[in-house]
Amino acid sequence: MQLLFLLSLSNPAAGQPERPRCRDLGICPGTLKPGPYNAITDVDGVRVGQASLRSGQGKLTPGQGPVRTGVTAILGAPDPWKVRLPAATFVLNGNGEMTGMAYLNDIGLLESPILLTNTLNVGRVADAAVSWLIQRNPQIGIRDDVPIAVVAECDDSTLNDIQGRHVGEAQVMAALNGACSGPVEEGDVGAGTGMVAYQFKGGIGTSSRQVEGYTVGVLVMANMGVRSEFTVLGVPVGLHLPEEALSRNTQGSLIVVVATDAPVSQSQLSRMARRAGLGLARTGAVSHHGSGDLVLAFSTANAVPRVSQEKLMNTRWLPDQQLDPLYQAVVEATEESILNSLLRAHTTVGRDGNTAIALPIEPLRQLLTRFGRL
Amino acid sequence: MQLLFLLSLSNPAAGQPERPRCRDLGICPGTLKPGPYNAITDVDGVRVGQASLRSGQGKLTPGQGPVRTGVTAILGAPDPWKVRLPAATFVLNGNGEMTGMAYLNDIGLLESPILLTNTLNVGRVADAAVSWLIQRNPQIGIRDDVPIAVVAECDDSTLNDIQGRHVGEAQVMAALNGACSGPVEEGDVGAGTGMVAYQFKGGIGTSSRQVEGYTVGVLVMANMGVRSEFTVLGVPVGLHLPEEALSRNTQGSLIVVVATDAPVSQSQLSRMARRAGLGLARTGAVSHHGSGDLVLAFSTANAVPRVSQEKLMNTRWLPDQQLDPLYQAVVEATEESILNSLLRAHTTVGRDGNTAIALPIEPLRQLLTRFGRL
Amino acid sequence: MQLLFLLSLSNPAAGQPERPRCRDLGICPGTLKPGPYNAITDVDGVRVGQASLRSGQGKLTPGQGPVRTGVTAILGAPDPWKVRLPAATFVLNGNGEMTGMAYLNDIGLLESPILLTNTLNVGRVADAAVSWLIQRNPQIGIRDDVPIAVVAECDDSTLNDIQGRHVGEAQVMAALNGACSGPVEEGDVGAGTGMVAYQFKGGIGTSSRQVEGYTVGVLVMANMGVRSEFTVLGVPVGLHLPEEALSRNTQGSLIVVVATDAPVSQSQLSRMARRAGLGLARTGAVSHHGSGDLVLAFSTANAVPRVSQEKLMNTRWLPDQQLDPLYQAVVEATEESILNSLLRAHTTVGRDGNTAIALPIEPLRQLLTRFGRL
Amino acid sequence: MQLLFLLSLSNPAAGQPERPRCRDLGICPGTLKPGPYNAITDVDGVRVGQASLRSGQGKLTPGQGPVRTGVTAILGAPDPWKVRLPAATFVLNGNGEMTGMAYLNDIGLLESPILLTNTLNVGRVADAAVSWLIQRNPQIGIRDDVPIAVVAECDDSTLNDIQGRHVGEAQVMAALNGACSGPVEEGDVGAGTGMVAYQFKGGIGTSSRQVEGYTVGVLVMANMGVRSEFTVLGVPVGLHLPEEALSRNTQGSLIVVVATDAPVSQSQLSRMARRAGLGLARTGAVSHHGSGDLVLAFSTANAVPRVSQEKLMNTRWLPDQQLDPLYQAVVEATEESILNSLLRAHTTVGRDGNTAIALPIEPLRQLLTRFGRL
Repeated sequence: MQLLFLLSLSNPAAGQPERPRCRDLGICPGTLKPGPYNAITDVDGVRVGQASLRSGQGKLTPGQGPVRTGVTAILGAPDPWKVRLPAATFVLNGNGEMTGMAYLNDIGLLESPILLTNTLNVGRVADAAVSWLIQRNPQIGIRDDVPIAVVAECDDSTLNDIQGRHVGEAQVMAALNGACSGPVEEGDVGAGTGMVAYQFKGGIGTSSRQVEGYTVGVLVMANMGVRSEFTVLGVPVGLHLPEEALSRNTQGSLIVVVATDAPVSQSQLSRMARRAGLGLARTGAVSHHGSGDLVLAFSTANAVPRVSQEKLMNTRWLPDQQLDPLYQAVVEATEESILNSLLRAHTTVGRDGNTAIALPIEPLRQLLTRFGRL
Repeated sequence: MQLLFLLSLSNPAAGQPERPRCRDLGICPGTLKPGPYNAITDVDGVRVGQASLRSGQGKLTPGQGPVRTGVTAILGAPDPWKVRLPAATFVLNGNGEMTGMAYLNDIGLLESPILLTNTLNVGRVADAAVSWLIQRNPQIGIRDDVPIAVVAECDDSTLNDIQGRHVGEAQVMAALNGACSGPVEEGDVGAGTGMVAYQFKGGIGTSSRQVEGYTVGVLVMANMGVRSEFTVLGVPVGLHLPEEALSRNTQGSLIVVVATDAPVSQSQLSRMARRAGLGLARTGAVSHHGSGDLVLAFSTANAVPRVSQEKLMNTRWLPDQQLDPLYQAVVEATEESILNSLLRAHTTVGRDGNTAIALPIEPLRQLLTRFGRL
Repeated sequence: MQLLFLLSLSNPAAGQPERPRCRDLGICPGTLKPGPYNAITDVDGVRVGQASLRSGQGKLTPGQGPVRTGVTAILGAPDPWKVRLPAATFVLNGNGEMTGMAYLNDIGLLESPILLTNTLNVGRVADAAVSWLIQRNPQIGIRDDVPIAVVAECDDSTLNDIQGRHVGEAQVMAALNGACSGPVEEGDVGAGTGMVAYQFKGGIGTSSRQVEGYTVGVLVMANMGVRSEFTVLGVPVGLHLPEEALSRNTQGSLIVVVATDAPVSQSQLSRMARRAGLGLARTGAVSHHGSGDLVLAFSTANAVPRVSQEKLMNTRWLPDQQLDPLYQAVVEATEESILNSLLRAHTTVGRDGNTAIALPIEPLRQLLTRFGRL
Repeated sequence: MQLLFLLSLSNPAAGQPERPRCRDLGICPGTLKPGPYNAITDVDGVRVGQASLRSGQGKLTPGQGPVRTGVTAILGAPDPWKVRLPAATFVLNGNGEMTGMAYLNDIGLLESPILLTNTLNVGRVADAAVSWLIQRNPQIGIRDDVPIAVVAECDDSTLNDIQGRHVGEAQVMAALNGACSGPVEEGDVGAGTGMVAYQFKGGIGTSSRQVEGYTVGVLVMANMGVRSEFTVLGVPVGLHLPEEALSRNTQGSLIVVVATDAPVSQSQLSRMARRAGLGLARTGAVSHHGSGDLVLAFSTANAVPRVSQEKLMNTRWLPDQQLDPLYQAVVEATEESILNSLLRAHTTVGRDGNTAIALPIEPLRQLLTRFGRL
């Protein structure tokens, strides 16, 4: 497994052909312009690292495999413990988990890496995040205060031996230490390895928008929705795609991480986070009861240092009147991130032979053409 | 004005031809089936009454006119003071007002009529609602507790002499006493008389869905959005419609009232209310900073009598697992209500000659046909 | 009544002897130092104005009298429409009303006067506040946006003809135009004229604290609590005071307004607002179901001008680490404000001869001495 | 360490004399009557289990010791996964962590054990909770949905090698499997082993109240407050007790768990949770910035089975009008729980010789006598 794990770090879909992103197909949600990578990493300072675990096949042996899971790490600052960032969350539907919510919602600072993984792995990943923070900040809990890890999850148990909680400290460290700027792997990678969206293979997706000199980036872990409600650019493709839907209830979830370099306050970030739900809606979902649709938004501007002798923090904020382009950017980038997660993911056979088929490109293209959107 | 007022009660668009609703054009958002009236009044016990004020034309004389405004009343029970209904609210964007929120959100009961009007008229309408409640319950504030009126607003100042606060006790009483079940007037009527949506003439719209033996009804006051973001069935019609947009900033708002006869708790209503935002998103809006996008959801089941000797309330609730169809119903009925508000509204010339053009039917039909949606 | 009204503006308890404040008796809650007036007006720029209505006696004639009510106005800026202040609210128990909550909680700005009155008078007072704002800003609703009034209430129906809604535009204008800095009248004055706290005569009270170069001021409208739970400096005086309690259920409420000149953000104000509940707790209350215990906190620092060409707002905030003295100040000043409201109020005979006895000074002093607190 | 661990399960303060509870000293907060054990376990069906870790002394070796920590488990049902209980939370100050908040606040069900531990141990304890749930429910993540653990924390780093995260699966299993009804160990036990309150040794405390045929039980983990603000029955004992205060900033926290057998809804539990803050206030705290003051309230009535074929849930709720005694019970039992945590805890010498002195009984008694409260 270790070998596979290393392989998967460098090549999450080894041997499988590359699949296109939205814009490769001419699917361009909204009207705003993406950043250079069309990824959350277009926000200066934001880095993403992922570790994927794929091993075994056939019948599920709980605790052993097959394994189709992983972890995705997002860093807004090289050391989030030292450089804290304004942040806020939004719960569109609370049937899920994002640890650290009391702190994020009230104190409004992100002082942990953001880690995405499967539901049962939250504890182990949170613990590994603490280890990573202690490595960099040996005074934690000695002279310093103590951190609360931010870990969000979706349920990948349709494909994965979720009881096994296979994501451990090694994977979390690899994801965090390997986090980098530039292009972000999407689809069946990292925490998205075993995720399913609109009953197709889903997972990690990302996108960005540039507005008024600022960048808004989004990264999603897409694991929600039923086929029949799936729309692309408003076209009800879910009703027209003939492919077999993975049998599955609606217990999936969506995690959205919004990053921006715009100088926005905790309150403004809270409002931005709410717009992610509108982006989700543009892909057709109604946010089912079983779906934990959670959003975290943070800004890399106006960082709050842990140690400071200043009596006052000098900050600069965007006036509320200038938020509309940022709101639009969140909506568009969320929509496109979800589509990217589906487009980039490869058909995956998981535990007990459960198979999540990749969103078929050609039929999709034909549908969008037929409906005048390509 | 009194004559006009009386006329407007019986015929809000006197002399103007009827305009179609969504389904008259073959526009059928979603997949669920509407109720008999495709209106919030399909929820048994829910009644709607409206009073419209239209007088004067030309240059604005603050406090005098021209007047393009009104009030819309929604009753969930014949006397909401005696029969209180479970309720909850959601704030998608808080740049607006719905009075009574502390009570609705914490105690979770609706014990007032719901009244919609223009922003500056909130105080007078709330006061009139109190008068109406006292008429029916002379013990209020004597032996009884005291009510808090629920009044929500949008800003109709582009067309209306909003400083005039022309909606008074007479109009509120007329709307409340005239509230009835059956078809609901839509478009430029009641509180919607002066509203503008997607830079077309907007106003009141309604729709409903029937699911699993229950009905979900929605009524909106639509006064939000910019033209370029407007979509119908996913088609970006706002980008293609040539008609002149009413010059206007994005200070409009959306009020959504969701009613159901499903036995859902305050918590479940809170979750239903959040889905209204997804319905809004399906029409293209991103919820601008200037928009007060507020939702109130209530259930006519499990009414809580004001006077009771019972030590325990016996109630029956829907299990959470059965909420998905209701969520879908809220999304679809909100989407369709917004479209109905635009389709049914007539071109309106307001103060200073400001003109909100009605959504042009034929070009819309052509666009939807061209994009394969009709 | 007009004459009485004018008299009451200048001398709310005409002919009645002055009653002491906390510190006149040696009752000094907490350890922090009050400002010069020990009032909310110690916060530079904060002004208070009140109008009291007292007329009639004997049997209640609904709509006519007896009248024991009024209005209290708090201004954080000379024109709150032009100079908007960071603000936040907290609902300890939501059985009450504070209009404008959607805006205050989400956008986080105070752009209205704060007005306190009785429950049924909220609509008329809100309407009068709009009139006052339009007088100062004739472009409202013409070229400007439109305001939402902030009005909070308690139920004074035990003493007052609350159905009469006797507070009209004249009283609101008088309170707003008469608002000034310096000492604040307390007890049975303004909106507190008919209020009852711990089954004694209550009403308006205020206090302040100076910490780290900043001032925190509190003003309360106290109308809550049952006698048996009343404590002063931790002494259960309610259990020991022999005076007859006004028969009354626990439907009263508490409104707390917190002002500070400390540069604190919306989020920090939200946290400060929560501490007001701790101050209430120090006087013994458990926040009954019938009590609308609502808090509004605002800062006069970092005002946000309505009209600005700035692309960024330069602001200075207190680091979170420096909030503790402000929190303590809120707790202490809330506690002292409640006590001042009781100490300063005079025995009041209201409708139907209902009598709220003033907190008896001498027995209180004896009790506090007996328990070692004086 | 294993031996010590086993010993500590049966006798958390081996060799140290028993210390009194509140009522042993005649300290009786409030007026309501406690249940037979005056503990959270007076609520039928609620069980508590604890594991304490004490080993090593002297200089801190990060990751090794000295160890002064543990875990406290609260179960509202024998298997919380199968029998889910209505629940809600309240954040008085969010500088802390309670995992599972998105689910608790939105869906409103407790479907995990409640586990208390130190801040850095949250991940490991959450992971162990998942293991425990899987042991009892082997279909989790196979045919069943997946659980989210509820773990709350305080920072015990003043006394404990918190980097070591010494609480592992063995301790969590021991606490959960050993959970029982009847008396609850208090003070320096379980998660309270290393906690400090009001700069005395604090930790676990519990109390209960019986009202109207129902029971309200509270359990706290007390780790908050500065000496000078500490009050007992309103007497400012913190200012008068001469004992040396443990040098320590105000980074401590308070976790409150409220249980009741009263049939109260999620909304009503939310309101009950807020009252815990009032109980905290009665002991003097102002909820410092560094304090994560978090409350979780649940009811054992109206359990929601995971598997049900019912189309409707028949439930019985208390009318809101009957909540006041429950509110009072929460306030009183929270106050008494905090006092019990201090009274029962023994002087503890921790890492680097840091010493938290036990609240001195005799001086306290003398102070309360001098101030007429005993």
